[in-house]
Amino acid sequence: MIADFTYHTPTKLYFGRGVIKDLPGVLGRFGKNVLLTYGGGSIKKIGLYTKIRELLCDFSVVELSGIEPNPKYDPSVVTGARLCKENHTDVILAVGGGSVLDCSKAISVCAKYDGEGWDLISGKVRAEASIPVVDVITLAATGSEYDCGCVISHTALCDKRGYLDDLLFPAASFLDPEYTFSVSRWQTACGTADAVNHVLEQFFASPHSTFNDGMMISALRSLMENVPTALEHPDDYGARSELMYVCTLACNGILANGAGSSGWPMHSIEHALSAYFDITHGAGLAVITPRWMKEILSPRTAERFVTLGTELFGFDKNIPDAETANKVIDAFYAFFESIGIPMHLAQLGVTADKIGEMADHILKKDSTENEWMYVSLDKDALVRILTASM
Amino acid sequence: MIADFTYHTPTKLYFGRGVIKDLPGVLGRFGKNVLLTYGGGSIKKIGLYTKIRELLCDFSVVELSGIEPNPKYDPSVVTGARLCKENHTDVILAVGGGSVLDCSKAISVCAKYDGEGWDLISGKVRAEASIPVVDVITLAATGSEYDCGCVISHTALCDKRGYLDDLLFPAASFLDPEYTFSVSRWQTACGTADAVNHVLEQFFASPHSTFNDGMMISALRSLMENVPTALEHPDDYGARSELMYVCTLACNGILANGAGSSGWPMHSIEHALSAYFDITHGAGLAVITPRWMKEILSPRTAERFVTLGTELFGFDKNIPDAETANKVIDAFYAFFESIGIPMHLAQLGVTADKIGEMADHILKKDSTENEWMYVSLDKDALVRILTASM
Repeated sequence: MIADFTYHTPTKLYFGRGVIKDLPGVLGRFGKNVLLTYGGGSIKKIGLYTKIRELLCDFSVVELSGIEPNPKYDPSVVTGARLCKENHTDVILAVGGGSVLDCSKAISVCAKYDGEGWDLISGKVRAEASIPVVDVITLAATGSEYDCGCVISHTALCDKRGYLDDLLFPAASFLDPEYTFSVSRWQTACGTADAVNHVLEQFFASPHSTFNDGMMISALRSLMENVPTALEHPDDYGARSELMYVCTLACNGILANGAGSSGWPMHSIEHALSAYFDITHGAGLAVITPRWMKEILSPRTAERFVTLGTELFGFDKNIPDAETANKVIDAFYAFFESIGIPMHLAQLGVTADKIGEMADHILKKDSTENEWMYVSLDKDALVRILTASM
Repeated sequence: MIADFTYHTPTKLYFGRGVIKDLPGVLGRFGKNVLLTYGGGSIKKIGLYTKIRELLCDFSVVELSGIEPNPKYDPSVVTGARLCKENHTDVILAVGGGSVLDCSKAISVCAKYDGEGWDLISGKVRAEASIPVVDVITLAATGSEYDCGCVISHTALCDKRGYLDDLLFPAASFLDPEYTFSVSRWQTACGTADAVNHVLEQFFASPHSTFNDGMMISALRSLMENVPTALEHPDDYGARSELMYVCTLACNGILANGAGSSGWPMHSIEHALSAYFDITHGAGLAVITPRWMKEILSPRTAERFVTLGTELFGFDKNIPDAETANKVIDAFYAFFESIGIPMHLAQLGVTADKIGEMADHILKKDSTENEWMYVSLDKDALVRILTASM
């Protein structure tokens, strides 16, 4: 059974070794004034910055560098929007991981808006226009390169928002797995954990179909099989290319078209965690995943665990459902631990005294206590999940 | 390992019961002059024609009806292009199956070209513009609603061409599984056979990846599990919706991005068959499939059969490869036969005296004897496949 859906992803993907040679042609369609955005300088270490500046020799380029993980509305988005306005930017070229791209997407709409940009991001005002965004991805993780979302933190408001709008689809995404060879063990693990969680957030929903289930299990299998190789041999093109491509598709909806909506509860919880403690998104998700699973396991939800157990992990079909479900939860815990993620929030710097406040924050912002969630989570449930994660 | 690829599908999908309510809004973006295209009148029998004319009450509508299966350049494409030019058509609305949509796509470029339209379709001249096409699909089969291709027959030249161009992507496709409830057993079976073959054409390629293999096997499983239900209970929404969605994704590339190209050899053979004998595309493909498989089975290709055998059919992993491969071939033969497709070309009206001529035709048009084919097929091989299929 395929549930009703609308799906649209106009982004063009260029995947493979050396694809950035096509950048000038793609950017040139939009104009000559480019805002080049990037993060802390890793793109300089791997030679990508120099290569891109060479490719852009015929363009007028303004730079915004230093975009932080969990990108901040102020200063990054505010500064970027100002630079676009001042320089009549035709196209934004984001080079880096999901944070740089998310920040650039936010800039692309704020630059076309005269009021306070946070009003767009927080959903108070609907954006009417954007500057085209093109990206070169250097980290397999968020899938921002193939979706219409971004996640922006507002430090002063202690808020972290997921913002979705069709205007935020990149015009084109360039994916060369070789640019991920230098990604650290930590970021490789956290990026993969992020994508594993993206698939699971979509898998735990009702209704679902043979086709969707198979695609999602295939995505999980690819991620879980390839990440050990990438950690062991960072320049293994086969493993890096599978991680990069699966991450790209893991978050844009194609794997779950026609499945019901789960409500993305683990992301709601993690967004509170990283708004309060600025932890790494993928690590936070990995820690929460098995605890959320334990919380929502029930006779109604057991079927989802059993499908994962038999199809993904190859568990015997004759084991009782509850036992299979617990084996699945243990298997995900063991997987995240095996790739080097500390599985307790305290190890990531989170303190237990904020649990109640974070639970209130989640309920206020994302309404996880709601009938459209796959499993509704009230304050007690959120506190249980967070406490178990400590 | 994900091989290099470029992927772009800007078509917006509207899937589910009642989605055509959004037609006027979508069409209205392009203008008020609509060319409405359809086939032999089945859309009148199911009430869809009346519903669409009601939805289009504020538009100026010209009709082209009677588009045939295996749509013909002359008269259908030629007439449609003339109607568009005469009526300053802003948007073409195709209502029907893949044949109606393919014909409409061809019309969309020929209407913007002053020369002989066949020069575009045959690749002699590159199209520079097209009229937007929107479709309402009533048959789960070709996947034309989500790709940039069309297949057009030129009766006088005894030619059937697959024509690909980014201009041919529909702007939007409306997919309501209820409109497929009245599809006959024969068309349901042939449409499914078409999609099964689309997946297999992409599966037999090198290189391939965990992720692609899983998606393609999931697509095959969904098609093969759901078609018996749809044949038994034509109004089973669950089965019809899975068939419709899988058919939509089966041909546009998303299942095989990053896999190598196979060269689509079975389509090359079938296009010759239906150019010479006007047989039903999906039936021709079903008959050819096991014979092509037998022809290309070798120690090099056995791994593909083993993956299908163990992952799709659940065969024991300890069986010798060659035995598994033959079991897989037999399983596809049995599947097509079980859904009511006569498994001999003679039963479809093909005569053996044309085999040599068709083999020459295939080699001349599609160069199946070539190193970029997954398995190169010379004239002897083509004759063997066709003879075995009789």
